[in-house]
Amino acid sequence: MNDVSNALPPGREISGLTRVFGILADPIHHVKTPQMLNALMAREGRDGVMVPFQVSSEDLPTLVAGLKRMKSLGGFVVTVPHKTAIVDLCDEVSDSARRIGAVNTVRREADGRLVGEMLDGKGFVGGLVAAGIDPKGRSAYLAGAGGAANAIAFALVERGVSRLTLANRTRAKAEDLAQRLAEAYPAAAVEIGTSDPSGHDIVVNGTSLGLKDGDPLPLDASRLSPGQIVAEVIMQPEETAILAAAKAAGCRTHPGKPMLACQLDLMADFLGMRALPEAVR
Amino acid sequence: MNDVSNALPPGREISGLTRVFGILADPIHHVKTPQMLNALMAREGRDGVMVPFQVSSEDLPTLVAGLKRMKSLGGFVVTVPHKTAIVDLCDEVSDSARRIGAVNTVRREADGRLVGEMLDGKGFVGGLVAAGIDPKGRSAYLAGAGGAANAIAFALVERGVSRLTLANRTRAKAEDLAQRLAEAYPAAAVEIGTSDPSGHDIVVNGTSLGLKDGDPLPLDASRLSPGQIVAEVIMQPEETAILAAAKAAGCRTHPGKPMLACQLDLMADFLGMRALPEAVR
Repeated sequence: MNDVSNALPPGREISGLTRVFGILADPIHHVKTPQMLNALMAREGRDGVMVPFQVSSEDLPTLVAGLKRMKSLGGFVVTVPHKTAIVDLCDEVSDSARRIGAVNTVRREADGRLVGEMLDGKGFVGGLVAAGIDPKGRSAYLAGAGGAANAIAFALVERGVSRLTLANRTRAKAEDLAQRLAEAYPAAAVEIGTSDPSGHDIVVNGTSLGLKDGDPLPLDASRLSPGQIVAEVIMQPEETAILAAAKAAGCRTHPGKPMLACQLDLMADFLGMRALPEAVR
Repeated sequence: MNDVSNALPPGREISGLTRVFGILADPIHHVKTPQMLNALMAREGRDGVMVPFQVSSEDLPTLVAGLKRMKSLGGFVVTVPHKTAIVDLCDEVSDSARRIGAVNTVRREADGRLVGEMLDGKGFVGGLVAAGIDPKGRSAYLAGAGGAANAIAFALVERGVSRLTLANRTRAKAEDLAQRLAEAYPAAAVEIGTSDPSGHDIVVNGTSLGLKDGDPLPLDASRLSPGQIVAEVIMQPEETAILAAAKAAGCRTHPGKPMLACQLDLMADFLGMRALPEAVR
């Protein structure tokens, strides 16, 4: 047992004092958040570790009830398929997370209370801001009304877009999203649009169209024009068909990846993995 | 995020595939098992990690009910104050663990069943065997009837001592232990003794007397004689007063530490942290 102290690098040896973080998912083999946040904690010199907590939808409430009692737990990240179900299992969630209907990060307070937040949209907006594209005061067009689009719509309104147009194939879903935005932010200018993104400063693909070869475009690319910024939520492929079309139309493009990096920073802040808060929140 | 892959050494990056192990304790700051078993898994090239699961006695049942549902969990080690309470929270425990009334290692099967085992005594006996002192066919004297002594008494009988003498200040506790041994092993020769260890091949201190300076000796050292082996469960100090007295009396001595190393091996085997089983079980 003499080589114990050499088996892990200094500061990365897990002890009884190590703060534990989890990621709730099912399946879980593909997750990358533990790798990223463990590297972040190592860089920050924090004594914490994130490990996979795989659990089925059926068993989520029982596991979460147990995790509330785990005093060494700092919190957990929540991903597919648990982002919606976790909302009601938290003791407290932000108003926007409740209206979005999803939570992706949960902090465990010292008294066991679970505080949930939805950082997908904030990560997207933070990624834009970090790239020098502040949506504040600009008009925005958002294609989609699913999970990602819901989070982004709230984050864009919270950042202060001058107006937001929602466009979705199933119009009722866009109207429902607009309704929830209006309840939360009565002064926000939100309207329902068509596939035509013209007349907006920032155009966002918040659908999954573009993930697969041969997907139809999420919006009418022939209506794009130079001066517009076209942003993507899809991370892989890095250049989706709509980004390629936007480039061809002379638009500035913003890929999906910065959203992830920014979101990891926001998760680290929310979970207390860092001593100092980040500039972009 | 470019240095992610360099932050942890190869084979120690935690991913969605990493098997998670816990240690249940309260307080938990002092535990050493995660360090030891994480080093062991690193040496074995196993993709697993042990992290602290601190939980109060009151909250133990709720946490364990949750952990049953955690599909990425391989199992957990159980220590003070949960070794007794965990017995009834397991779906299955070995007969000897049930009779000892304590479990210190729990494996989670793929279907969520929790299988508990008590390895304290087996670790002690394994440590003796590894030092060339096989209790099989020898007579043994055991001072104490508490948690450690209970586990050791069962392990000595299971190993096949020719006879076992139990001595405890509170005689009723020794009688109760003898009774449970007789129920499990009707053929075993178990009797209640005094503080006099003479006439036994192996003499074991299974009490906590010797942990602190000025503790009384756990047995009558004036009755020790050359040819006897005197073994200790206390790890710190390495040479307790009874070991010093035994040496002075010409006995062979066996310190407390090998019990720990052997027990870690047994835990690793029981929890499936290794591909190949160990020779000593």
